[in-house]
Amino acid sequence: MNPAHFVLDERLAAESQPLCRFELSDVRLMNDANYPWLILVPRIAGVRELIDLDAGQRRRLGDETDRAARLLRDAFRPRKLNVAALGNVVAQLHVHVIARFEDDPAWPAPVWGRVEARPYSPEALIERIDLLQGLLHT
Amino acid sequence: MNPAHFVLDERLAAESQPLCRFELSDVRLMNDANYPWLILVPRIAGVRELIDLDAGQRRRLGDETDRAARLLRDAFRPRKLNVAALGNVVAQLHVHVIARFEDDPAWPAPVWGRVEARPYSPEALIERIDLLQGLLHT
Repeated sequence: MNPAHFVLDERLAAESQPLCRFELSDVRLMNDANYPWLILVPRIAGVRELIDLDAGQRRRLGDETDRAARLLRDAFRPRKLNVAALGNVVAQLHVHVIARFEDDPAWPAPVWGRVEARPYSPEALIERIDLLQGLLHT
Repeated sequence: MNPAHFVLDERLAAESQPLCRFELSDVRLMNDANYPWLILVPRIAGVRELIDLDAGQRRRLGDETDRAARLLRDAFRPRKLNVAALGNVVAQLHVHVIARFEDDPAWPAPVWGRVEARPYSPEALIERIDLLQGLLHT
């Protein structure tokens, strides 16, 4: 692990906002008001697959993924959580954690490629980040 | 954990074939020749979310997911691995591990809902299961 060489992928940076920093991962809120949607990006340069992580990193990423999932569950009481590491478009390893509802615009399909992202208003973005950061610190 | 009450979901059973039994999970091959595609189903009754597992089960499922991912990597040398726990349609907890290629019919989109499943011929199904079981035992 060499955090000095980690640089967040430009596309991930453009599509999401920083939420918090876990021990291994940066947690970011996707700027898409269609779904409460977090991504976790381990701060490790050059990693593409979950199986590229060493055992300790892999375990920690699992723990941090669960922590993000519990955060969304507690904040939004979704019908279902979706957890995925895909990376076909953005190769840098990132894990999606998404709160899904029966009335969301993609249900019951996965969210990718269904409807255009609907960016938060500046006020709504701040409000959502405040809500989630508040829950993280309780 | 009460394996006596675990029953595989009917839809998962219909769409996949048994491949092997890990300590926690049944590993099954999805009957879709478009992609080398495994699912892991922990033999625990009533579990829907990764965060419903206890810490030991969760860790083991992560380890078993990685083992399935390495199996597909070693067998097929894919461009990318996709790992996901979605469950919007089939609530029973199951983890997808899919080998993706730039010439597969959904690339670079996720596989769900893109093209109809293309069942293996009986001969091709046996051949694929033999290949994967052989690699598991080396």
